[in-house]
Amino acid sequence: MEAIRIITHKRDGGELPREDIQYLIDEYTAGRVPDYQMAAFLMASQLRGLTLKETIALTECMLNSGRILDFTAVSNLVVDKHSTGGVGDKISLVLAPIARACGVCVPMMAGRGLGHTGGTLDKLDSIPGFRTRLNLTEVYNQVRETGIAIIGPTKEIAPADRLLYALRDVTASVDFIPFITASILSKKLAEGLDGLVLDVKLGRGAFMKTPETARELAENLVHVGERLGMNTIAWVTNMDVPLGRAVGNWLEVEEAIRCLHGEGPEDVMELSLALCSEMIVLAGLADSAEEGQARAQAAVDSGRALDVFAKLVTKQGGDSSVIYDPTLRLRSIEPTVITVPLDISGYVSDIDAMKIAHASNEMGTGRLVMTDSVDPEAGIVLHLRPGDRVQPGAPLASFYTRKIDQTERFIRNVADAYTFSESPVKKPQVLIDRLTVDGWDSAA
Amino acid sequence: MEAIRIITHKRDGGELPREDIQYLIDEYTAGRVPDYQMAAFLMASQLRGLTLKETIALTECMLNSGRILDFTAVSNLVVDKHSTGGVGDKISLVLAPIARACGVCVPMMAGRGLGHTGGTLDKLDSIPGFRTRLNLTEVYNQVRETGIAIIGPTKEIAPADRLLYALRDVTASVDFIPFITASILSKKLAEGLDGLVLDVKLGRGAFMKTPETARELAENLVHVGERLGMNTIAWVTNMDVPLGRAVGNWLEVEEAIRCLHGEGPEDVMELSLALCSEMIVLAGLADSAEEGQARAQAAVDSGRALDVFAKLVTKQGGDSSVIYDPTLRLRSIEPTVITVPLDISGYVSDIDAMKIAHASNEMGTGRLVMTDSVDPEAGIVLHLRPGDRVQPGAPLASFYTRKIDQTERFIRNVADAYTFSESPVKKPQVLIDRLTVDGWDSAA
Repeated sequence: MEAIRIITHKRDGGELPREDIQYLIDEYTAGRVPDYQMAAFLMASQLRGLTLKETIALTECMLNSGRILDFTAVSNLVVDKHSTGGVGDKISLVLAPIARACGVCVPMMAGRGLGHTGGTLDKLDSIPGFRTRLNLTEVYNQVRETGIAIIGPTKEIAPADRLLYALRDVTASVDFIPFITASILSKKLAEGLDGLVLDVKLGRGAFMKTPETARELAENLVHVGERLGMNTIAWVTNMDVPLGRAVGNWLEVEEAIRCLHGEGPEDVMELSLALCSEMIVLAGLADSAEEGQARAQAAVDSGRALDVFAKLVTKQGGDSSVIYDPTLRLRSIEPTVITVPLDISGYVSDIDAMKIAHASNEMGTGRLVMTDSVDPEAGIVLHLRPGDRVQPGAPLASFYTRKIDQTERFIRNVADAYTFSESPVKKPQVLIDRLTVDGWDSAA
Repeated sequence: MEAIRIITHKRDGGELPREDIQYLIDEYTAGRVPDYQMAAFLMASQLRGLTLKETIALTECMLNSGRILDFTAVSNLVVDKHSTGGVGDKISLVLAPIARACGVCVPMMAGRGLGHTGGTLDKLDSIPGFRTRLNLTEVYNQVRETGIAIIGPTKEIAPADRLLYALRDVTASVDFIPFITASILSKKLAEGLDGLVLDVKLGRGAFMKTPETARELAENLVHVGERLGMNTIAWVTNMDVPLGRAVGNWLEVEEAIRCLHGEGPEDVMELSLALCSEMIVLAGLADSAEEGQARAQAAVDSGRALDVFAKLVTKQGGDSSVIYDPTLRLRSIEPTVITVPLDISGYVSDIDAMKIAHASNEMGTGRLVMTDSVDPEAGIVLHLRPGDRVQPGAPLASFYTRKIDQTERFIRNVADAYTFSESPVKKPQVLIDRLTVDGWDSAA
């Protein structure tokens, strides 16, 4: 009767007191409120809305459904970054080692790719031997020893989120901002963070397709994060175009390694350094974004960030020789090179991130359902990017796939993501808007 | 994926094509769409609304989920009445025998009481031996032989409704008009009716508390019924005050028998004859409401309606001697008489139907959940009704209960339902508005 009363109150547009949200989450997690009542609640919440107060309560109840890590004995500079998911987004692999090299403690819990987006765990899995499944004792010991870990979700962390995520997925309740907020923050708060930097992706290749929804999500995340005692900053960043040149698991690790060697694509470096600088400032290790940026750059230039990454890989069971020389990881597939059509000259004006994501997924990099397996080697390399000058017949993009019977289609699909222009084109702006608890700044 | 697509479309405010509704109902009934997806769909439908077209499709798909009776070989004058539920509503017991005595074929599928409302089946169960559980072959044979049956729901009829009703009950989706419409009409259409008269109760003792919602339900019922090939008429009738004097299972049967003897309370007779007249006209046995009313009155006056009821009771295994002399049914409890307070004079101005329903239910007549059992003898008799003159110390009401330890409370609760006035009071109007496919008429 209690659950029906709560659902009815939300259905009729009322605001729920914390006790009611607590009741639903606790009883649902314990299996005493059935899926069908929770499904009715999720739909009523989506259509009637949840206030900031309700979202805060929901996040906290989901957080409290499981264990909360506590690194206060290890460091009081515990900061993480979370991205809402994009195409070619290997930023975590670049930024976590840099932040650690600058003194930030980074206990990063990452996810797998689903739908059109890639996942950090799938990328790390392409490093021979790398283990992402650590238990909480292993995580704690590793962070204490090395100040960094990148791991998969564990069953002790926010079990209510795991149950709700699965239910949202099958009841058309995925893309409701308060649920996205509670899901992200309950897991991040469980890491025992002092600060969190959020990368809210906006554009064709992102979940948020409009500036309004991206800003709304950023605002929800920052306000709820801050109200639950975590310093929180959000950047809205461009995801119309893939990030960097590589899309695919090992291809992206390779590109991340190149970034740590100081040889990465401009946009990946710019975003990694900007977000990393925020982490450094949040950790109290720099007083300004400029100073944070300079420290981050120095960690790359000195090779210290690369050493951190190699150490992390070794620590989690991987072969760190590939970090110093990525060519040591043997490839089992040959690339197919797509060239610029002979009748095209001028500039690349655009690359549709969603079309690239679909093409790459079909090549074997992605999964439609969580039980699908991914091909670590499959993917696409974009030799030319928006703003680049094109020469007829020059390499435009290459791709790797085991589905050689579909090569013709893949060529068409990748080429179809490109548009060209006769006149010069500005490179797309990566950083769009920045939000702190004090309000918005524009990067423009 | 198909179910998610359909839920999403409704969530986003779209109108669903018939195929989508068919898919959901068929797959849900077959157990292939789970409760949690149906719960999300129910909530999205409630909050986004269902159009008339969608309601028609839903009703038809629910109807087609089970068997549909066909009495065309027996009669082409098959008409039933359905009430949305009230307090003291024994109209079916009066009207079905009269309609049958006038030549209408009445295969009535009735329900049990739930919450504050009584149910025709619970009332019939108080007749010693009466069987309401007939299988479809028995129903068919009885209707062919006698032209009348009053039975409980069978599992072959609209199984989708049975499943959905149980799910709505626990997901805050009970009081949404298109669902109520589809639930009522899918079962009534399954009786193979040519016509249906609806009694939409309005007021304190009804599910519909406002004229707007009662009219909206009536309109939904008439439009959907007509579009599905059944001549449908609806009356909105008063349920602020209990109908008649008796509230309780056997007490109401007794009152219905008195009506068939021509000795019933004015309001019960007025409503029974008015609705019965509609049935007679729908069956083509009279050309006007006046003619229908005259035929119905004649069936009572001649004793033919009483004989039909006695025959029905015998046919369904009951002891028909009580129909001719209700005192033959032995009582096992003594009444408690409540008298008019000595400081009160004037008139009864009002009786709150909901307060009477609650008091009666507590005495043992009702159930909170479907598995509760009911006491056939418990209940209340209202000696004085609105408009009646009161004499200090005269009997106001009596009640029957086995819970003698709570007598004091019951006295207070029943007395509390009454209000009095020094000046004369008009009796409440029973019939309010009438709706046919051509539009509304007012009874006033």
